[in-house]
Amino acid sequence: MERFLGKASIRLESPVEVISSASVVGSKEGEGPLGALFDKAWEDDSLGAKNWEEAESLLQKEALGKAMDKIGMKPEEIQYLFAGDLLGQSIASSFGLGEFQIPFFGIYGACSTCGEALTLGAMAIAGGFADVTACVTSSHFASAEREFRFPLEYGNQRPLSASWTVTGSGAFILRGNFRKAAGKTEGPEEGMCEREPERKPLARICGMTVGRIEDYGIKDSMNMGACMAPAAASTILQHMEDWGRRPEDYDQIITGDLGSVGRTALLDFLRERGMDLEERHSDCGMLIYDAERQDVHAGGSGCGCCATVLASYVLRQLREGFWKRILFLPTGALLSKTSFNEGKTVPAICHALVLESVDS
Amino acid sequence: MERFLGKASIRLESPVEVISSASVVGSKEGEGPLGALFDKAWEDDSLGAKNWEEAESLLQKEALGKAMDKIGMKPEEIQYLFAGDLLGQSIASSFGLGEFQIPFFGIYGACSTCGEALTLGAMAIAGGFADVTACVTSSHFASAEREFRFPLEYGNQRPLSASWTVTGSGAFILRGNFRKAAGKTEGPEEGMCEREPERKPLARICGMTVGRIEDYGIKDSMNMGACMAPAAASTILQHMEDWGRRPEDYDQIITGDLGSVGRTALLDFLRERGMDLEERHSDCGMLIYDAERQDVHAGGSGCGCCATVLASYVLRQLREGFWKRILFLPTGALLSKTSFNEGKTVPAICHALVLESVDS
Repeated sequence: MERFLGKASIRLESPVEVISSASVVGSKEGEGPLGALFDKAWEDDSLGAKNWEEAESLLQKEALGKAMDKIGMKPEEIQYLFAGDLLGQSIASSFGLGEFQIPFFGIYGACSTCGEALTLGAMAIAGGFADVTACVTSSHFASAEREFRFPLEYGNQRPLSASWTVTGSGAFILRGNFRKAAGKTEGPEEGMCEREPERKPLARICGMTVGRIEDYGIKDSMNMGACMAPAAASTILQHMEDWGRRPEDYDQIITGDLGSVGRTALLDFLRERGMDLEERHSDCGMLIYDAERQDVHAGGSGCGCCATVLASYVLRQLREGFWKRILFLPTGALLSKTSFNEGKTVPAICHALVLESVDS
Repeated sequence: MERFLGKASIRLESPVEVISSASVVGSKEGEGPLGALFDKAWEDDSLGAKNWEEAESLLQKEALGKAMDKIGMKPEEIQYLFAGDLLGQSIASSFGLGEFQIPFFGIYGACSTCGEALTLGAMAIAGGFADVTACVTSSHFASAEREFRFPLEYGNQRPLSASWTVTGSGAFILRGNFRKAAGKTEGPEEGMCEREPERKPLARICGMTVGRIEDYGIKDSMNMGACMAPAAASTILQHMEDWGRRPEDYDQIITGDLGSVGRTALLDFLRERGMDLEERHSDCGMLIYDAERQDVHAGGSGCGCCATVLASYVLRQLREGFWKRILFLPTGALLSKTSFNEGKTVPAICHALVLESVDS
């Protein structure tokens, strides 16, 4: 059913469909350029919860609930759930998603977690282990500041290279493209997924390139973009080599949350290796806020950043056929406050997904 | 290639083989009843590192290195690596395994992470995405005390229900059982895995039951056994129902780290539902230390507990044919110090793996 295209890539000959998505965000995200595209923007970032961590759990719960509601799906129809966040021991997911009672895989890849979730969720379907899986990630500005830097009450200053953790959660429901697979001997059994979709799938996942942990020795926790840019470059180069493709084969190459500093580093890094990404690169961290108006310094970041941008803007562009094929690259900085305080570097990782319009 | 046996289970018709394992532990584990079975026991729990977190990273690095060395395998022969630990943002794995440069999936399921890693690692192979995968988990008593409770210097007292976090890491290398699959049209392509093993596989993974997040409202972070017992019971009941099996179908049913308090709760819970596990149940947390002599209160716990016991004692029993078939059930308590301090409950999760002797 699948072919290896290289040491780190998988191509799905029978692509996995993204049949629903939902995004729930906070006030700053709602006021940003993509505000009108999110399914819900809270005016109160506490969501009425007792603390920021509980608010983040509610974001996940609401995002998955909305993604299911849009297609009339019940939790018992989802075989496996892949979810994670940035908090210690991934508590936003553990507390936010437990009551759905879907068999659960907790994952962690820092802000790349959305890419890891979609990769594993698609693999579970393409491997024949499930008809339907769901993927959820989240972050919250206030819980992330407490987790990684300082509680908001401390009022610390932020350098211009710092990014702003997105308050938001994105959820995705994936399903096998079984109609196309029918007739192939190696396809899933017939009748495994009888229900017709209520609407056209948003996009299809055609393959992935799985990232490695890259450590370029950078130690600045206020400059995540610089830490993550080498990981994004490494995965892009590996992807193009494995798949025999060039940047021109994609309408857009979209990184997760490099921000303006990381984008510059990525473009420079690739240019030195003979690859020009300038025209077709965009970054979810730069799309979600208005840099002039919203004072977010380098841009947005966090597990909720690329997840909410994918769930809203990117999937809409694919569904409407404005883009035929994109490379989606969630990026993650693998640090904790403990490792930072101990003077360690900030390794990073980036996973790539090939997303195509269902019309292409 | 696989069949669904129920909403949470997978049976692998072509089982995945565990072709190598290794265990590296600290001093207390080396002095315990299984001491002679571990591949290495450090006398100095710091491993000569600058801090406890770095020591834990070294445990992972050494465990995976030893598992590869035993069968002469190189990092580039391993397609995907699934790893995790208990520290915030899973830093033991990020810093311990980066230099192997194997495409990486970070995972988090508290002390159940070993079960999640083996499940995903086996799925990646059985789904046709990889020939060989590796799974690594770890914990360290001193880094876990700092992460979840108090730094050792504080000298806090521990109640008798508390468990003792195992200092250790277990690593496993999995491979598809392609010789048996040959001739089946749905099997992997011939020649995908040509290398013959240098020795007999240790065991084979025949299937799994994926756990749900269970929350019984318990809030005592010094009684992990009671928090996790309902999750273990839930997964055992789901497994028996999905597979149409009874406890008598297994030579041993081995939980991860319930300890003595959790074991009693599990047996009581299942007895009320008409299932008697007393005779064939054992718990890695009770096997790894000598309760009389080593003052560990309820028993061992942590991501390193069931991983090191599986990598040493359990796989040896299967390899030697003393056991034909076991159910292996890593258990995890999904809390953080933040959620504990905010008065939240301790949800739990447990994944089941069916492991069989290759002679059976």
